[in-house]
Amino acid sequence: MKPGKLIGVGLGPGDPELLTIKAVETIRSSPVIAFFAKAGRRGNAREIADRWIPKGRCELPLYYPMTSETRFDTAVYVATLRAFYDQATLLLAAHLDEGRDVALLAEGDPLFYGSFMHLYVRLRERFETEIVPGVTGMAGCWGAAGAPIAWGDDVMTVLPGTLPEEELVARLANTHAAVVLKLGSNFRKARAAIVKAGLADRAIYVERGTMAGESVMRLCDKIDDSAPYFSLILIPGEGRRP
Amino acid sequence: MKPGKLIGVGLGPGDPELLTIKAVETIRSSPVIAFFAKAGRRGNAREIADRWIPKGRCELPLYYPMTSETRFDTAVYVATLRAFYDQATLLLAAHLDEGRDVALLAEGDPLFYGSFMHLYVRLRERFETEIVPGVTGMAGCWGAAGAPIAWGDDVMTVLPGTLPEEELVARLANTHAAVVLKLGSNFRKARAAIVKAGLADRAIYVERGTMAGESVMRLCDKIDDSAPYFSLILIPGEGRRP
Repeated sequence: MKPGKLIGVGLGPGDPELLTIKAVETIRSSPVIAFFAKAGRRGNAREIADRWIPKGRCELPLYYPMTSETRFDTAVYVATLRAFYDQATLLLAAHLDEGRDVALLAEGDPLFYGSFMHLYVRLRERFETEIVPGVTGMAGCWGAAGAPIAWGDDVMTVLPGTLPEEELVARLANTHAAVVLKLGSNFRKARAAIVKAGLADRAIYVERGTMAGESVMRLCDKIDDSAPYFSLILIPGEGRRP
Repeated sequence: MKPGKLIGVGLGPGDPELLTIKAVETIRSSPVIAFFAKAGRRGNAREIADRWIPKGRCELPLYYPMTSETRFDTAVYVATLRAFYDQATLLLAAHLDEGRDVALLAEGDPLFYGSFMHLYVRLRERFETEIVPGVTGMAGCWGAAGAPIAWGDDVMTVLPGTLPEEELVARLANTHAAVVLKLGSNFRKARAAIVKAGLADRAIYVERGTMAGESVMRLCDKIDDSAPYFSLILIPGEGRRP
């Protein structure tokens, strides 16, 4: 029997109409639909793809272990996540070994900071794989803001908010355009770095871009320090424009 | 009469199946389809969208002036392009003033180094606008290469190949992951910079990603110095992976 194929399906930034034609066709034709979710939740990926998943299709939720009390740079955190990805790999491989293609849903683009990648590198030596690229969350957000992000010779830098504040400041001061991702509890630090880099006037905060509850504002106008999972900060470039 | 709306429609990296559902619906429902093209050609954007444009729909090609003999940093080049964008703005405004929505096609994503942006900033004060974000060319390319581009805390830098070689070297040496765009006649310089930054082993060259004639190879294995419009170089990150 021919083994199944693992397909990483980019879901785009959140609006279900921002899946690609190919993503929708892949979801419709794959016998198994896998996705990551917080334990006890349906999960964002499953929610975004909802209208495209045929009723009764075999679904394989992969529930993240609880890690919010553990710092991500500790040995315990790394071991917990590794065990989770190894276990998820076994679950997917069982379907693939039986000849069933598995569509693994990925918010945004599968190969851009995605959990998908951790299973992909564990399975790609053994099984055929395919990537269906997606609209990134950041593209959905600069689209929602109507903010051209990079022009002409602009250098654009993508910065995880997890970086130390001094590093954020240095990198922000040395680029034309920037996107700061992974805000959450890093929001306060990221804002401080943007202010120190002298970029507060240009910074735009976007929450739930392309989704219900979308909110776009100048970073200067944001009064609290809370930032949900679906949020980021844009520093649009100002490069060559004839 | 209500004026029309300008809609920037991201077409994705080249495969017509990588338009989003929303892009296809926008193209189908817009009375005017505008697109940039080289003079005398049909143009890449029109080609990518071809199967989604209803027969007989009003089309508005915007033909770039011939600029290949003019350096992009000269006053003549800037003046020529400015006149072209101003003229194109008038053509679009004429339709919008008559109440017709105009879908302006954009390869990749409309707000990421796109010609669309030059008309958008000229028209957005006067008319309603909407952005349909798209899969970027670079996401199509790292998908084609099967190369996860950024992990965990990786910093990703997007570098136009038009930058001076020393600047490319410095920026490449100071990032975890990188994408070098706008190769063409800059390919030789970009490769030299990657070698000097010590990244040649990790670099991947992708040509026509997601399209007919797609080619993916290690940069080390590329023997000539020619790189077409649809090409770029990826330096995948190697960040945290449990």
